Amino acid sequence: MRLVRYFTAGGPVHIGALEGDAVVPLALADHGDDSPLLEIAMSRRRPDDIGAPVPLVQAHLLSPLHAPTTIRDFLTFEAHYANFLQGQTGSADIPAEWYRTPVFYFTNPAVVFGPGDEIPRPQTEQLDYELEVAVVIGREGADVSVADAPDLIAGYTLFNDFSARDIQKVEMALGLGASKCKDFAQSLGPCLATPDEFGGEPGQPRARIRARVNGREYGVDDLANMTHSFARLISHASTSSRLRPGDVLGSGTAATGCIMELAGLHGHKKYPWLQPGDVVELEAEGIGVLSNTIGPRRG
Amino acid sequence: MRLVRYFTAGGPVHIGALEGDAVVPLALADHGDDSPLLEIAMSRRRPDDIGAPVPLVQAHLLSPLHAPTTIRDFLTFEAHYANFLQGQTGSADIPAEWYRTPVFYFTNPAVVFGPGDEIPRPQTEQLDYELEVAVVIGREGADVSVADAPDLIAGYTLFNDFSARDIQKVEMALGLGASKCKDFAQSLGPCLATPDEFGGEPGQPRARIRARVNGREYGVDDLANMTHSFARLISHASTSSRLRPGDVLGSGTAATGCIMELAGLHGHKKYPWLQPGDVVELEAEGIGVLSNTIGPRRG
Repeated sequence: MRLVRYFTAGGPVHIGALEGDAVVPLALADHGDDSPLLEIAMSRRRPDDIGAPVPLVQAHLLSPLHAPTTIRDFLTFEAHYANFLQGQTGSADIPAEWYRTPVFYFTNPAVVFGPGDEIPRPQTEQLDYELEVAVVIGREGADVSVADAPDLIAGYTLFNDFSARDIQKVEMALGLGASKCKDFAQSLGPCLATPDEFGGEPGQPRARIRARVNGREYGVDDLANMTHSFARLISHASTSSRLRPGDVLGSGTAATGCIMELAGLHGHKKYPWLQPGDVVELEAEGIGVLSNTIGPRRG
Repeated sequence: MRLVRYFTAGGPVHIGALEGDAVVPLALADHGDDSPLLEIAMSRRRPDDIGAPVPLVQAHLLSPLHAPTTIRDFLTFEAHYANFLQGQTGSADIPAEWYRTPVFYFTNPAVVFGPGDEIPRPQTEQLDYELEVAVVIGREGADVSVADAPDLIAGYTLFNDFSARDIQKVEMALGLGASKCKDFAQSLGPCLATPDEFGGEPGQPRARIRARVNGREYGVDDLANMTHSFARLISHASTSSRLRPGDVLGSGTAATGCIMELAGLHGHKKYPWLQPGDVVELEAEGIGVLSNTIGPRRG
Protein backbone atom coordinates (compact mmCIF):
# COMPACT_ATOMS: atom_id res chain seq x y z
CA MET A 1 0.00 0.00 0.00
CA ARG A 2 0.99 3.58 -0.66
CA LEU A 3 -0.94 5.50 1.99
CA VAL A 4 -1.62 9.23 1.80
CA ARG A 5 -3.28 11.96 3.84
CA TYR A 6 -5.26 14.21 1.53
CA PHE A 7 -8.30 16.37 1.08
CA THR A 8 -10.39 17.44 -1.89
CA ALA A 9 -11.94 20.90 -2.32
CA GLY A 10 -14.03 21.73 0.74
CA GLY A 11 -13.73 18.24 2.18
CA PRO A 12 -12.23 16.84 5.39
CA VAL A 13 -8.80 15.22 5.56
CA HIS A 14 -8.85 11.53 4.65
CA ILE A 15 -6.46 8.62 4.69
CA GLY A 16 -6.33 7.00 1.26
CA ALA A 17 -4.43 4.55 -0.89
CA LEU A 18 -2.64 5.70 -4.06
CA GLU A 19 -3.72 3.28 -6.79
CA GLY A 20 -2.73 4.22 -10.32
CA ASP A 21 -3.95 7.74 -11.04
CA ALA A 22 -6.50 7.68 -8.24
CA VAL A 23 -6.74 7.96 -4.48
CA VAL A 24 -9.06 5.47 -2.81
CA PRO A 25 -10.53 6.82 0.46
CA LEU A 26 -9.98 4.40 3.36
CA ALA A 27 -10.68 6.39 6.54
CA LEU A 28 -11.21 9.86 7.92
CA ALA A 29 -8.02 11.33 9.33
CA ASP A 30 -8.27 12.24 12.99
CA HIS A 31 -6.88 15.77 13.15
CA GLY A 32 -3.68 15.79 15.12
CA ASP A 33 -3.48 12.03 15.58
CA ASP A 34 -1.57 9.86 13.14
CA SER A 35 -2.81 6.54 14.49
CA PRO A 36 -5.50 5.87 11.81
CA LEU A 37 -2.85 5.89 9.06
CA LEU A 38 -0.29 4.00 11.13
CA GLU A 39 -2.82 1.34 12.12
CA ILE A 40 -3.76 0.69 8.49
CA ALA A 41 -0.08 0.43 7.58
CA MET A 42 0.66 -1.97 10.45
CA SER A 43 -2.33 -4.20 9.57
CA ARG A 44 -0.55 -4.89 6.24
CA ARG A 45 -4.04 -5.20 4.72
CA ARG A 46 -5.90 -2.60 2.67
CA PRO A 47 -9.25 -1.88 4.35
CA ASP A 48 -12.43 -1.55 2.30
CA ASP A 49 -13.06 1.72 0.45
CA ILE A 50 -15.27 4.21 2.27
CA GLY A 51 -16.11 6.15 -0.88
CA ALA A 52 -15.48 6.56 -4.59
CA PRO A 53 -11.90 6.88 -5.88
CA VAL A 54 -10.72 10.47 -6.42
CA PRO A 55 -8.58 11.39 -9.45
CA LEU A 56 -5.09 12.10 -8.08
CA VAL A 57 -5.10 15.56 -9.70
CA GLN A 58 -8.09 16.51 -7.54
CA ALA A 59 -6.50 15.33 -4.30
CA HIS A 60 -4.38 17.77 -2.26
CA LEU A 61 -1.76 15.54 -0.66
CA LEU A 62 -0.40 16.37 2.80
CA SER A 63 2.60 15.03 4.68
CA PRO A 64 1.66 11.40 5.46
CA LEU A 65 2.33 12.22 9.13
CA HIS A 66 0.60 15.23 10.64
CA ALA A 67 2.73 15.23 13.79
CA PRO A 68 5.78 12.96 13.97
CA THR A 69 6.57 12.20 17.61
CA THR A 70 10.31 12.53 17.02
CA ILE A 71 12.63 12.74 14.02
CA ARG A 72 16.05 11.12 14.20
CA ASP A 73 18.40 11.56 11.30
CA PHE A 74 21.26 9.09 10.74
CA LEU A 75 24.38 9.10 8.55
CA THR A 76 24.51 5.83 6.63
CA PHE A 77 25.76 6.51 3.09
CA GLU A 78 29.51 5.95 3.03
CA ALA A 79 30.21 7.92 -0.15
CA HIS A 80 28.26 10.93 1.14
CA TYR A 81 30.17 10.86 4.42
CA ALA A 82 33.52 10.57 2.62
CA ASN A 83 32.68 13.49 0.32
CA PHE A 84 31.48 15.53 3.32
CA LEU A 85 34.70 14.85 5.25
CA GLN A 86 36.80 15.68 2.18
CA GLY A 87 35.06 19.05 1.94
CA GLN A 88 35.32 19.80 5.67
CA THR A 89 38.76 18.47 6.55
CA GLY A 90 40.54 17.85 3.26
CA SER A 91 40.59 14.11 3.96
CA ALA A 92 37.95 11.51 3.05
CA ASP A 93 39.10 9.10 5.79
CA ILE A 94 36.05 7.77 7.61
CA PRO A 95 36.59 6.93 11.31
CA ALA A 96 36.55 3.15 11.89
CA GLU A 97 33.90 3.58 14.59
CA TRP A 98 31.37 4.77 12.00
CA TYR A 99 31.31 1.29 10.44
CA ARG A 100 30.54 -0.30 13.80
CA THR A 101 27.82 1.98 15.19
CA PRO A 102 25.09 4.00 13.50
CA VAL A 103 25.18 7.68 14.47
CA PHE A 104 22.28 10.13 14.49
CA TYR A 105 20.92 13.41 15.82
CA PHE A 106 17.40 14.49 16.72
CA THR A 107 15.79 17.23 14.65
CA ASN A 108 12.60 19.28 15.00
CA PRO A 109 9.29 17.40 14.47
CA ALA A 110 7.24 20.65 14.69
CA VAL A 111 8.04 22.11 11.27
CA VAL A 112 6.84 19.35 8.94
CA PHE A 113 5.88 20.13 5.34
CA GLY A 114 4.34 17.93 2.67
CA PRO A 115 4.04 17.44 -1.09
CA GLY A 116 3.77 20.70 -3.02
CA ASP A 117 4.36 22.91 0.02
CA GLU A 118 6.39 26.07 -0.31
CA ILE A 119 9.38 25.89 2.03
CA PRO A 120 9.84 29.07 4.10
CA ARG A 121 13.38 30.41 3.77
CA PRO A 122 15.32 31.10 6.96
CA GLN A 123 17.97 33.87 7.01
CA THR A 124 20.54 32.04 4.89
CA GLU A 125 22.59 32.49 1.75
CA GLN A 126 23.34 28.76 1.51
CA LEU A 127 20.04 26.91 1.39
CA ASP A 128 20.36 23.21 0.53
CA TYR A 129 18.15 20.12 0.24
CA GLU A 130 19.00 16.59 1.39
CA LEU A 131 17.87 13.45 -0.45
CA GLU A 132 16.81 10.89 2.15
CA VAL A 133 14.33 8.13 2.81
CA ALA A 134 12.88 7.74 6.30
CA VAL A 135 11.39 4.72 8.02
CA VAL A 136 8.27 5.42 10.09
CA ILE A 137 7.65 3.47 13.30
CA GLY A 138 4.18 1.98 13.78
CA ARG A 139 4.51 0.13 17.08
CA GLU A 140 6.14 0.92 20.42
CA GLY A 141 9.41 -0.86 21.16
CA ALA A 142 12.45 -0.86 23.43
CA ASP A 143 15.72 -2.80 23.10
CA VAL A 144 14.56 -4.27 19.78
CA SER A 145 16.90 -6.71 18.03
CA VAL A 146 17.82 -6.24 14.36
CA ALA A 147 15.86 -9.42 13.58
CA ASP A 148 12.71 -8.07 15.26
CA ALA A 149 13.04 -4.51 13.96
CA PRO A 150 10.97 -5.06 10.76
CA ASP A 151 7.92 -5.72 12.98
CA LEU A 152 8.01 -2.07 14.09
CA ILE A 153 8.02 -0.64 10.56
CA ALA A 154 4.84 1.08 9.34
CA GLY A 155 6.51 2.06 6.07
CA TYR A 156 8.87 4.40 4.27
CA THR A 157 8.62 7.92 2.93
CA LEU A 158 10.85 10.43 1.20
CA PHE A 159 12.46 12.93 3.56
CA ASN A 160 13.91 16.26 2.48
CA ASP A 161 15.97 17.58 5.38
CA PHE A 162 16.37 21.19 4.19
CA SER A 163 19.56 22.72 5.60
CA ALA A 164 21.12 26.20 5.88
CA ARG A 165 24.83 25.50 5.38
CA ASP A 166 26.11 28.90 6.56
CA ILE A 167 24.27 28.46 9.86
CA GLN A 168 25.43 24.82 10.03
CA LYS A 169 29.08 25.79 9.66
CA VAL A 170 28.89 28.19 12.62
CA GLU A 171 26.95 25.71 14.76
CA MET A 172 29.10 22.68 14.13
CA ALA A 173 32.22 24.63 15.16
CA LEU A 174 30.59 25.00 18.60
CA GLY A 175 30.49 21.24 19.12
CA LEU A 176 26.80 20.41 19.57
CA GLY A 177 26.16 19.34 15.98
CA ALA A 178 23.53 20.55 13.53
CA SER A 179 20.33 21.98 15.02
CA LYS A 180 19.21 25.52 14.13
CA CYS A 181 20.48 24.99 10.58
CA LYS A 182 17.76 22.33 10.14
CA ASP A 183 15.13 23.75 12.50
CA PHE A 184 12.87 25.35 9.85
CA ALA A 185 11.56 22.65 7.49
CA GLN A 186 11.38 18.88 7.20
CA SER A 187 9.44 17.72 4.15
CA LEU A 188 7.84 14.24 4.13
CA GLY A 189 5.85 12.48 1.41
CA PRO A 190 4.19 11.95 -0.95
CA CYS A 191 3.00 8.72 0.71
CA LEU A 192 3.86 6.18 3.36
CA ALA A 193 4.81 3.08 1.35
CA THR A 194 4.46 -0.18 3.28
CA PRO A 195 7.42 -2.61 3.17
CA ASP A 196 5.76 -4.86 0.53
CA GLU A 197 6.16 -2.02 -2.01
CA PHE A 198 9.92 -2.65 -2.14
CA GLY A 199 12.42 -5.26 -3.16
CA GLY A 200 15.31 -6.14 -0.87
CA GLU A 201 15.46 -7.71 2.57
CA PRO A 202 12.98 -7.15 5.43
CA GLY A 203 14.17 -3.99 7.14
CA GLN A 204 16.28 -2.91 4.16
CA PRO A 205 14.50 -1.99 0.94
CA ARG A 206 16.29 -1.66 -2.37
CA ALA A 207 15.16 1.46 -4.22
CA ARG A 208 16.76 3.89 -6.65
CA ILE A 209 16.52 7.40 -5.21
CA ARG A 210 17.26 10.64 -7.04
CA ALA A 211 16.93 14.41 -6.74
CA ARG A 212 16.12 17.06 -9.32
CA VAL A 213 16.28 20.85 -9.09
CA ASN A 214 14.10 22.69 -11.61
CA GLY A 215 13.84 19.45 -13.59
CA ARG A 216 17.60 18.86 -13.85
CA GLU A 217 18.98 15.65 -12.33
CA TYR A 218 21.25 16.45 -9.38
CA GLY A 219 22.11 13.10 -7.81
CA VAL A 220 21.19 9.43 -7.80
CA ASP A 221 21.83 6.58 -5.38
CA ASP A 222 20.19 3.40 -4.05
CA LEU A 223 18.98 2.52 -0.54
CA ALA A 224 20.90 -0.74 -0.97
CA ASN A 225 24.07 1.35 -0.47
CA MET A 226 23.27 2.13 3.17
CA THR A 227 26.09 0.79 5.34
CA HIS A 228 23.65 0.31 8.23
CA SER A 229 20.21 -1.07 7.33
CA PHE A 230 16.99 0.53 8.55
CA ALA A 231 16.52 -2.53 10.78
CA ARG A 232 19.91 -1.77 12.35
CA LEU A 233 18.97 1.91 12.81
CA ILE A 234 15.76 0.90 14.58
CA SER A 235 17.60 -1.53 16.84
CA HIS A 236 20.22 1.09 17.69
CA ALA A 237 17.67 3.85 18.34
CA SER A 238 15.64 1.57 20.62
CA THR A 239 18.62 0.44 22.73
CA SER A 240 18.14 1.60 26.34
CA SER A 241 15.39 3.81 24.96
CA ARG A 242 11.86 3.75 23.59
CA LEU A 243 10.46 4.08 20.09
CA ARG A 244 6.86 5.24 19.67
CA PRO A 245 4.36 5.09 16.80
CA GLY A 246 5.02 8.17 14.67
CA ASP A 247 8.79 8.23 15.25
CA VAL A 248 10.71 8.97 12.05
CA LEU A 249 14.25 7.69 11.37
CA GLY A 250 16.01 9.24 8.39
CA SER A 251 18.63 7.39 6.35
CA GLY A 252 20.87 10.45 6.17
CA THR A 253 21.82 12.05 2.89
CA ALA A 254 22.43 9.77 -0.09
CA ALA A 255 25.69 10.00 -2.03
CA THR A 256 25.52 13.12 -4.25
CA GLY A 257 22.25 13.85 -2.41
CA CYS A 258 22.78 17.54 -1.60
CA ILE A 259 24.23 20.70 -3.12
CA MET A 260 27.03 20.98 -0.54
CA GLU A 261 28.37 17.64 -1.72
CA LEU A 262 27.82 18.19 -5.46
CA ALA A 263 29.39 21.65 -5.36
CA GLY A 264 32.34 20.26 -3.42
CA LEU A 265 32.91 17.83 -6.28
CA HIS A 266 31.96 20.04 -9.26
CA GLY A 267 31.75 23.67 -8.08
CA HIS A 268 28.95 26.09 -7.20
CA LYS A 269 28.78 27.44 -10.73
CA LYS A 270 27.23 24.13 -11.73
CA TYR A 271 25.40 23.59 -8.42
CA PRO A 272 24.32 26.95 -6.90
CA TRP A 273 22.56 27.17 -3.53
CA LEU A 274 18.75 27.07 -3.68
CA GLN A 275 17.03 30.33 -4.66
CA PRO A 276 13.43 31.54 -4.23
CA GLY A 277 11.19 29.75 -6.73
CA ASP A 278 13.47 26.73 -7.20
CA VAL A 279 11.61 23.42 -7.35
CA VAL A 280 13.25 20.48 -5.58
CA GLU A 281 11.99 16.99 -6.40
CA LEU A 282 13.04 13.86 -4.56
CA GLU A 283 12.09 10.53 -6.12
CA ALA A 284 12.23 6.95 -4.88
CA GLU A 285 11.12 3.69 -6.47
CA GLY A 286 8.13 2.41 -4.51
CA ILE A 287 7.32 5.81 -3.02
CA GLY A 288 6.99 8.38 -5.82
CA VAL A 289 8.00 12.04 -6.09
CA LEU A 290 8.13 14.64 -3.31
CA SER A 291 8.17 18.14 -4.78
CA ASN A 292 8.67 21.43 -2.92
CA THR A 293 9.20 25.04 -4.00
CA ILE A 294 11.56 27.39 -2.21
CA GLY A 295 9.81 30.40 -0.70
CA PRO A 296 10.77 34.08 -0.99
CA ARG A 297 13.75 35.66 0.69
CA ARG A 298 13.13 36.90 4.25
CA GLY A 299 13.45 40.45 5.52
CA MET B 1 2.57 28.73 41.88
CA ARG B 2 4.55 25.52 42.11
CA LEU B 3 2.46 23.10 40.05
CA VAL B 4 2.81 19.32 40.28
CA ARG B 5 1.36 16.19 38.71
CA TYR B 6 0.72 13.61 41.41
CA PHE B 7 -1.43 10.78 42.64
CA THR B 8 -2.26 9.33 46.03
CA ALA B 9 -2.74 5.60 46.76
CA GLY B 10 -5.33 4.19 44.40
CA GLY B 11 -6.33 7.60 43.04
CA PRO B 12 -6.20 9.23 39.60
CA VAL B 13 -3.46 11.61 38.52
CA HIS B 14 -4.13 15.21 39.55
CA ILE B 15 -2.65 18.62 38.95
CA GLY B 16 -1.95 20.35 42.24
CA ALA B 17 -0.16 23.26 43.83
CA LEU B 18 2.68 22.69 46.32
CA GLU B 19 1.86 24.88 49.31
CA GLY B 20 4.03 24.35 52.39
CA ASP B 21 3.96 20.65 53.31
CA ALA B 22 0.78 19.97 51.35
CA VAL B 23 -0.43 19.52 47.81
CA VAL B 24 -3.69 21.30 46.98
CA PRO B 25 -5.66 19.51 44.21
CA LEU B 26 -6.57 21.88 41.37
CA ALA B 27 -7.64 19.67 38.45
CA LEU B 28 -7.68 16.14 37.15
CA ALA B 29 -4.77 15.45 34.81
CA ASP B 30 -5.82 14.38 31.35
CA HIS B 31 -3.74 11.28 30.66
CA GLY B 32 -1.30 11.97 27.89
CA ASP B 33 -2.18 15.64 27.52
CA ASP B 34 -0.24 18.31 29.38
CA SER B 35 -2.58 21.17 28.56
CA PRO B 36 -4.47 21.24 31.92
CA LEU B 37 -1.24 21.98 33.80
CA LEU B 38 0.09 24.37 31.16
CA GLU B 39 -3.19 26.30 31.05
CA ILE B 40 -3.18 26.81 34.81
CA ALA B 41 0.43 28.01 34.63
CA MET B 42 -0.30 30.42 31.76
CA SER B 43 -3.36 31.86 33.54
CA ARG B 44 -0.92 33.08 36.27
CA ARG B 45 -3.78 32.56 38.71
CA ARG B 46 -4.29 29.68 41.12
CA PRO B 47 -7.69 28.12 40.44
CA ASP B 48 -9.98 27.10 43.31
CA ASP B 49 -9.25 23.83 45.13
CA ILE B 50 -11.21 20.82 43.94
CA GLY B 51 -10.61 18.84 47.13
CA ALA B 52 -8.86 18.72 50.48
CA PRO B 53 -5.08 19.34 50.67
CA VAL B 54 -2.96 16.18 50.73
CA PRO B 55 0.12 15.93 52.96
CA LEU B 56 3.13 16.04 50.65
CA VAL B 57 4.43 12.75 52.07
CA GLN B 58 1.28 11.00 50.81
CA ALA B 59 1.53 12.42 47.28
CA HIS B 60 3.50 10.51 44.66
CA LEU B 61 4.92 13.25 42.45
CA LEU B 62 5.41 12.66 38.71
CA SER B 63 7.30 14.62 36.10
CA PRO B 64 5.33 17.89 35.76
CA LEU B 65 5.09 17.11 32.01
CA HIS B 66 3.79 13.72 30.96
CA ALA B 67 4.86 14.13 27.33
CA PRO B 68 7.10 17.06 26.38
CA THR B 69 6.61 17.85 22.70
CA THR B 70 10.33 18.48 22.18
CA ILE B 71 13.38 18.95 24.39
CA ARG B 72 16.10 21.36 23.28
CA ASP B 73 19.22 21.61 25.39
CA PHE B 74 21.42 24.72 25.19
CA LEU B 75 24.93 25.55 26.40
CA THR B 76 24.81 28.83 28.32
CA PHE B 77 27.14 28.59 31.32
CA GLU B 78 30.49 30.06 30.33
CA ALA B 79 32.53 28.45 33.10
CA HIS B 80 31.09 25.00 32.30
CA TYR B 81 31.91 25.41 28.62
CA ALA B 82 35.46 26.59 29.41
CA ASN B 83 36.05 23.63 31.73
CA PHE B 84 34.58 21.25 29.14
CA LEU B 85 36.86 22.63 26.39
CA GLN B 86 39.87 22.45 28.70
CA GLY B 87 39.16 18.75 29.31
CA GLN B 88 38.51 17.96 25.64
CA THR B 89 41.11 20.07 23.85
CA GLY B 90 43.56 21.24 26.53
CA SER B 91 42.49 24.85 25.98
CA ALA B 92 39.66 26.74 27.70
CA ASP B 93 39.36 29.26 24.84
CA ILE B 94 35.69 29.74 24.00
CA PRO B 95 34.94 30.54 20.34
CA ALA B 96 33.79 34.18 19.92
CA GLU B 97 30.68 33.00 18.09
CA TRP B 98 29.37 31.34 21.25
CA TYR B 99 28.91 34.75 22.89
CA ARG B 100 26.84 35.98 19.94
CA THR B 101 24.47 33.06 19.30
CA PRO B 102 22.94 30.49 21.63
CA VAL B 103 23.64 26.91 20.54
CA PHE B 104 21.54 23.82 21.27
CA TYR B 105 20.71 20.27 20.26
CA PHE B 106 17.46 18.32 20.37
CA THR B 107 17.22 15.36 22.71
CA ASN B 108 14.67 12.56 23.21
CA PRO B 109 11.31 13.60 24.73
CA ALA B 110 10.14 9.95 24.98
CA VAL B 111 12.20 8.86 27.99
CA VAL B 112 11.08 11.31 30.66
CA PHE B 113 11.41 10.46 34.34
CA GLY B 114 10.20 12.31 37.40
CA PRO B 115 10.88 12.85 41.11
CA GLY B 116 11.96 9.69 42.93
CA ASP B 117 12.19 7.59 39.78
CA GLU B 118 14.93 5.03 39.39
CA ILE B 119 16.99 5.85 36.31
CA PRO B 120 17.62 2.81 34.07
CA ARG B 121 21.30 2.40 33.32
CA PRO B 122 22.35 2.08 29.69
CA GLN B 123 25.48 0.06 28.79
CA THR B 124 28.02 2.53 30.15
CA GLU B 125 30.92 2.71 32.56
CA GLN B 126 30.77 6.51 32.72
CA LEU B 127 27.29 7.51 33.84
CA ASP B 128 26.94 11.20 34.70
CA TYR B 129 24.22 13.65 35.73
CA GLU B 130 23.84 17.25 34.51
CA LEU B 131 22.55 20.07 36.70
CA GLU B 132 20.20 22.20 34.62
CA VAL B 133 17.02 24.25 34.79
CA ALA B 134 14.59 24.15 31.89
CA VAL B 135 11.99 26.65 30.78
CA VAL B 136 8.66 25.13 29.67
CA ILE B 137 6.69 26.75 26.84
CA GLY B 138 2.98 27.31 27.41
CA ARG B 139 1.89 29.08 24.23
CA GLU B 140 2.64 28.58 20.53
CA GLY B 141 5.03 31.09 18.96
CA ALA B 142 7.20 31.75 15.91
CA ASP B 143 9.86 34.45 15.38
CA VAL B 144 9.37 35.68 18.94
CA SER B 145 11.44 38.70 20.04
CA VAL B 146 13.46 38.60 23.27
CA ALA B 147 11.07 41.23 24.69
CA ASP B 148 8.00 39.11 23.93
CA ALA B 149 9.56 35.77 24.94
CA PRO B 150 8.43 35.91 28.62
CA ASP B 151 4.80 35.74 27.39
CA LEU B 152 5.46 32.18 26.18
CA ILE B 153 6.83 30.91 29.51
CA ALA B 154 4.66 28.52 31.52
CA GLY B 155 7.37 28.08 34.12
CA TYR B 156 10.64 26.47 35.09
CA THR B 157 11.64 23.04 36.33
CA LEU B 158 14.82 21.22 37.24
CA PHE B 159 16.24 19.11 34.43
CA ASN B 160 18.71 16.27 34.93
CA ASP B 161 20.10 15.40 31.51
CA PHE B 162 21.70 12.05 32.40
CA SER B 163 24.63 11.29 30.10
CA ALA B 164 26.84 8.30 29.25
CA ARG B 165 30.27 9.91 28.72
CA ASP B 166 31.94 6.89 27.10
CA ILE B 167 29.18 6.73 24.47
CA GLN B 168 29.32 10.53 24.09
CA LYS B 169 33.05 10.49 23.37
CA VAL B 170 32.61 8.03 20.50
CA GLU B 171 29.58 9.88 19.11
CA MET B 172 31.04 13.35 19.20
CA ALA B 173 34.09 12.19 17.25
CA LEU B 174 31.69 11.29 14.41
CA GLY B 175 30.54 14.91 14.08
CA LEU B 176 26.78 14.77 14.74
CA GLY B 177 26.97 15.80 18.40
CA ALA B 178 25.51 14.07 21.45
CA SER B 179 22.46 11.86 20.88
CA LYS B 180 22.55 8.19 21.93
CA CYS B 181 24.61 9.15 24.97
CA LYS B 182 21.58 11.07 26.27
CA ASP B 183 18.81 8.95 24.73
CA PHE B 184 17.88 6.95 27.84
CA ALA B 185 16.67 9.34 30.56
CA GLN B 186 15.67 12.95 31.05
CA SER B 187 14.45 13.72 34.56
CA LEU B 188 12.13 16.70 35.18
CA GLY B 189 10.61 18.04 38.40
CA PRO B 190 9.65 18.20 41.16
CA CYS B 191 7.27 20.98 40.03
CA LEU B 192 6.69 23.57 37.35
CA ALA B 193 7.39 26.87 39.10
CA THR B 194 5.72 29.86 37.47
CA PRO B 195 7.89 32.94 36.83
CA ASP B 196 6.57 34.81 39.89
CA GLU B 197 8.37 32.27 42.11
CA PHE B 198 11.74 33.80 41.18
CA GLY B 199 13.71 37.00 41.54
CA GLY B 200 15.51 38.45 38.55
CA GLU B 201 14.27 39.88 35.27
CA PRO B 202 11.29 38.63 33.22
CA GLY B 203 12.68 35.78 31.13
CA GLN B 204 15.75 35.37 33.34
CA PRO B 205 15.24 34.17 36.90
CA ARG B 206 17.93 34.39 39.54
CA ALA B 207 18.16 31.16 41.54
CA ARG B 208 20.93 29.28 43.29
CA ILE B 209 21.15 25.77 41.89
CA ARG B 210 23.14 22.89 43.29
CA ALA B 211 23.68 19.14 42.96
CA ARG B 212 24.33 16.47 45.56
CA VAL B 213 25.32 12.83 45.16
CA ASN B 214 24.49 10.60 48.14
CA GLY B 215 24.00 13.75 50.21
CA ARG B 216 27.44 15.25 49.41
CA GLU B 217 27.49 18.65 47.67
CA TYR B 218 28.94 18.31 44.17
CA GLY B 219 28.48 21.71 42.53
CA VAL B 220 26.72 25.04 42.94
CA ASP B 221 25.93 27.88 40.55
CA ASP B 222 23.25 30.51 39.87
CA LEU B 223 20.91 30.94 36.89
CA ALA B 224 22.01 34.59 36.86
CA ASN B 225 25.33 33.32 35.40
CA MET B 226 23.73 32.22 32.12
CA THR B 227 25.41 34.14 29.28
CA HIS B 228 22.20 33.90 27.22
CA SER B 229 18.94 34.43 29.12
CA PHE B 230 15.99 32.04 28.83
CA ALA B 231 14.18 34.82 26.93
CA ARG B 232 17.03 34.86 24.42
CA LEU B 233 16.95 31.05 24.12
CA ILE B 234 13.22 31.17 23.39
CA SER B 235 13.69 33.89 20.78
CA HIS B 236 16.51 31.96 19.12
CA ALA B 237 14.64 28.65 19.11
CA SER B 238 11.56 30.28 17.59
CA THR B 239 13.44 32.02 14.77
CA SER B 240 12.24 30.66 11.40
CA SER B 241 10.63 27.89 13.43
CA ARG B 242 7.74 27.14 15.75
CA LEU B 243 7.52 26.60 19.50
CA ARG B 244 4.59 24.62 20.88
CA PRO B 245 3.05 24.25 24.36
CA GLY B 246 5.03 21.49 26.09
CA ASP B 247 8.36 22.35 24.47
CA VAL B 248 11.23 22.21 26.96
CA LEU B 249 14.39 24.34 26.64
CA GLY B 250 17.25 23.37 28.94
CA SER B 251 19.81 25.88 30.20
CA GLY B 252 22.68 23.49 29.63
CA THR B 253 24.90 22.27 32.43
CA ALA B 254 25.75 24.75 35.18
CA ALA B 255 29.38 25.38 36.10
CA THR B 256 30.62 22.39 38.18
CA GLY B 257 27.26 20.82 37.32
CA CYS B 258 28.40 17.36 36.27
CA ILE B 259 30.96 14.70 37.18
CA MET B 260 32.89 15.03 33.91
CA GLU B 261 33.66 18.63 34.77
CA LEU B 262 34.34 18.10 38.48
CA ALA B 263 36.62 15.13 37.82
CA GLY B 264 38.44 17.13 35.15
CA LEU B 265 39.21 19.72 37.84
CA HIS B 266 39.72 17.46 40.87
CA GLY B 267 40.08 13.85 39.67
CA HIS B 268 37.83 10.78 39.53
CA LYS B 269 39.02 9.57 42.91
CA LYS B 270 37.04 12.45 44.44
CA TYR B 271 34.26 12.38 41.81
CA PRO B 272 33.65 8.81 40.55
CA TRP B 273 31.10 8.05 37.82
CA LEU B 274 27.59 7.22 39.07
CA GLN B 275 27.08 3.68 40.37
CA PRO B 276 23.91 1.61 40.93
CA GLY B 277 22.11 2.88 44.03
CA ASP B 278 23.63 6.38 43.95
CA VAL B 279 21.14 9.13 44.74
CA VAL B 280 21.43 12.32 42.68
CA GLU B 281 19.65 15.42 43.95
CA LEU B 282 19.34 18.65 42.00
CA GLU B 283 18.08 21.69 43.89
CA ALA B 284 16.99 25.15 42.79
CA GLU B 285 15.60 28.08 44.77
CA GLY B 286 11.97 28.54 43.78
CA ILE B 287 11.63 24.98 42.46
CA GLY B 288 12.76 22.52 45.15
CA VAL B 289 14.67 19.23 44.99
CA LEU B 290 14.61 16.65 42.18
CA SER B 291 15.92 13.31 43.45
CA ASN B 292 16.66 10.18 41.41
CA THR B 293 18.33 6.86 42.17
CA ILE B 294 20.59 5.08 39.69
CA GLY B 295 19.26 1.69 38.64
CA PRO B 296 21.13 -1.63 38.51
CA ARG B 297 23.82 -2.50 36.00
CA ARG B 298 22.52 -3.98 32.71
CA GLY B 299 23.32 -7.36 31.26
